[in-house]
Amino acid sequence: IAKGASLLTGRLPVRNGFYTTNAHARNAYTPQEIVGGISKDEILLPQVLKKKGYVNKIIGKWHLGHRAHHLPLEHGFDEWFGAPNCHFGPYNSSDRPNVPVYNNSQMVGRYYEEFGIDKKTGESNLTQIYLEEGLDFIFHQNMAQRPFFLYWAADATHAPVYASKRFLGKSQRGRYGDAVMELDYSVGQMLAWLRALGIDKDTFVFFTSDNGAAVMSGPKQSGSNGPFLCGKETTFEGGMREPAIAWWPGHIPAGTVSQQLGTVMDLFSTSLSLAGLSVPDDRLIDGLDLSPVLHNNTLINRPIFYYRGNEMMAVRVGPYKAHYWTWSNSWEEFNQGINFCPGQEVAGVTTHTQQEHTMQPLIFHLGRDPGEKYPISAGTKEYQDVLSRITAVVEKHKKGLVPGVPQLNMCDMAVMNWAPPGCEKLGKCLKAPKSQPWKCDWPH
Amino acid sequence: IAKGASLLTGRLPVRNGFYTTNAHARNAYTPQEIVGGISKDEILLPQVLKKKGYVNKIIGKWHLGHRAHHLPLEHGFDEWFGAPNCHFGPYNSSDRPNVPVYNNSQMVGRYYEEFGIDKKTGESNLTQIYLEEGLDFIFHQNMAQRPFFLYWAADATHAPVYASKRFLGKSQRGRYGDAVMELDYSVGQMLAWLRALGIDKDTFVFFTSDNGAAVMSGPKQSGSNGPFLCGKETTFEGGMREPAIAWWPGHIPAGTVSQQLGTVMDLFSTSLSLAGLSVPDDRLIDGLDLSPVLHNNTLINRPIFYYRGNEMMAVRVGPYKAHYWTWSNSWEEFNQGINFCPGQEVAGVTTHTQQEHTMQPLIFHLGRDPGEKYPISAGTKEYQDVLSRITAVVEKHKKGLVPGVPQLNMCDMAVMNWAPPGCEKLGKCLKAPKSQPWKCDWPH
Repeated sequence: IAKGASLLTGRLPVRNGFYTTNAHARNAYTPQEIVGGISKDEILLPQVLKKKGYVNKIIGKWHLGHRAHHLPLEHGFDEWFGAPNCHFGPYNSSDRPNVPVYNNSQMVGRYYEEFGIDKKTGESNLTQIYLEEGLDFIFHQNMAQRPFFLYWAADATHAPVYASKRFLGKSQRGRYGDAVMELDYSVGQMLAWLRALGIDKDTFVFFTSDNGAAVMSGPKQSGSNGPFLCGKETTFEGGMREPAIAWWPGHIPAGTVSQQLGTVMDLFSTSLSLAGLSVPDDRLIDGLDLSPVLHNNTLINRPIFYYRGNEMMAVRVGPYKAHYWTWSNSWEEFNQGINFCPGQEVAGVTTHTQQEHTMQPLIFHLGRDPGEKYPISAGTKEYQDVLSRITAVVEKHKKGLVPGVPQLNMCDMAVMNWAPPGCEKLGKCLKAPKSQPWKCDWPH
Repeated sequence: IAKGASLLTGRLPVRNGFYTTNAHARNAYTPQEIVGGISKDEILLPQVLKKKGYVNKIIGKWHLGHRAHHLPLEHGFDEWFGAPNCHFGPYNSSDRPNVPVYNNSQMVGRYYEEFGIDKKTGESNLTQIYLEEGLDFIFHQNMAQRPFFLYWAADATHAPVYASKRFLGKSQRGRYGDAVMELDYSVGQMLAWLRALGIDKDTFVFFTSDNGAAVMSGPKQSGSNGPFLCGKETTFEGGMREPAIAWWPGHIPAGTVSQQLGTVMDLFSTSLSLAGLSVPDDRLIDGLDLSPVLHNNTLINRPIFYYRGNEMMAVRVGPYKAHYWTWSNSWEEFNQGINFCPGQEVAGVTTHTQQEHTMQPLIFHLGRDPGEKYPISAGTKEYQDVLSRITAVVEKHKKGLVPGVPQLNMCDMAVMNWAPPGCEKLGKCLKAPKSQPWKCDWPH
């Protein structure tokens, strides 16, 4: 979630406000009861792109707040087809409404109602609908000869996993694999469409994931993080490291492999650079302009800071990663069977209490040890050398850090998607309960 | 080790005799004190290839027995450059000799003596020497216009890990990565040489590994098994599953991906098929002819049986794998810090006692669950359906199984490489101790 905010602002959550200070080092996100969302003070990628006449569309999940003033069209997007929250459900409409699907600023239905998801069979046409929306948008912008930014944020492969009928049962990886196959097909269709329209050499396409596989969902509802430790919701590599593909025929040679370490925040700076625009100069932008990497496969040495809330959990510098805090999830949650690291257990690393290592961070060499299994012994010269390099990087970072006002601290059942704009026409307005705000509590 | 015997005989160790019955379900191998080796009764790939005039050479590690009658030139190879055992050492020459390096049937030196391996710096020219031998052999067979079989079995990347000077420190993966890089370079050189000689379209090249990364050696001396469970010495996927590359320009389309499940035993049957030869018809051959897979990317449905000694530990049928016995290694060894599954722990699966599951095997769907983390619940219809399919396959297999005479049961310090043929000329003969045979004991 914080990833969408980071991608679109080019800034760490701790700077752009998309975080909580309620609970130390816990993962905040944006369920329907969240009061806040993306701050009006933040400048989003589509807002800057407008300066050059770009038409901006988001298709799919927004997740930067679902109340009217948080929605995409209030933050620089010209069009939207999709939902403000995740496709969890179905709900009974009295305790909790089903999540609405919007066409621009009006709802056109709700998940599990007009937009079916059969949790038993796993069938849903959502990805196909989002694909059609994408193809249609590309076609119309091309006809109008306008530059465009399409943020295609399909819900798939988030659990509950679904695929449309023609993909169900087709992969060797169960329903999750079917969903991946449909996603892959859909991206392929969009690329083919760009070629067919003759604009493939003018269109920069970037594909990546916002976090590692949610391995706590078990094998039927999630992928695998390969050699990496744990998964989504953690600051171990399984939660944070993703592959990415950049596609731009005539500009990026096909088959090029880059070892550049990037973050989704770089998409902000890189996209603006490619569009001939500058990043905002009135605030600190964390994202780097990776266009030299795309064009010349250069390597830019840069640190990465891994946060949970306002706590810096870990830092990556070169091939080394230092953990200042470790935990996967709480004992309480773990004992209920929620496991962020199933089948994995590294003593003193995948801890179920929040363990501080500030005085002597756990340091891994991710080249030799991509699975974060063998902390480098603190007595070695390698450890001391690396620690002094990392310490300098961390001190500089902390010195320049002005935390944003945390936007995800308050919850209220009254703010849920009871009566989104457009519900009247559809006869789908629900009655909200009385407002009773509370400080959100985060389970992990 | 059993892999080399399987590759060259096309038969399971339990059939070709390359196993032990001393200790239940323990891993036998061929240290210098082993008395036995590959049986004279077995027919090896080069012996069959000779019928069509092939010249056969092995370069590198043999490991099918180091006593005179076990050596490669006694079993169908025309040439050999390499060593009968692994490059462990250095030894002090009184308790244990260093392993000899042979040129055909004469020793030309020993590891750590004439063939240096600097364990401190990690420098050794062994891979370069083996590469030069390979290039030279290919050149001479081509000049003579004779068909050839080159079994290039480099010691690298076995621990202790080494690389030559120009590769040391060059990878992003430490010394192990350097060794992989040199291996990759060496294979590339041989392919380039085939192209330069104009015989690339007439030469079938197959590259694979004989087992998963030896993760018990820690990150500095071993690779990673990615998403798979445990590593070498186990019958979990991390020990058994390997990628493989088949290269044959003009015959196998470049970039083809096959989902075919194969074993090294298939190389026996496939190579003979490609050479226009039949497999021996007087014995059961486990290897399949995969040439239809190579030519037409067909898929052959076949089971795989995973043994330790004479115990069938597990069976793979389609995407399912059933474990009849589980264990990684003993508590005794584990408590000494030897860990075949570092950072991994799946309750009831990575056990440190030998647990029998014959009545209710643990079954995994390797598509949904490549890491063998989620046994399918025995109460489900899926489990019952799969079990009945697998049971039929296992019963058929067991019915047709005639175990070979186990060759790896006896050990004796007197049989070590004290005075290999050729040692006199070099002044490198050592005095053997008195013969005192014992039943070998295997640690895991």
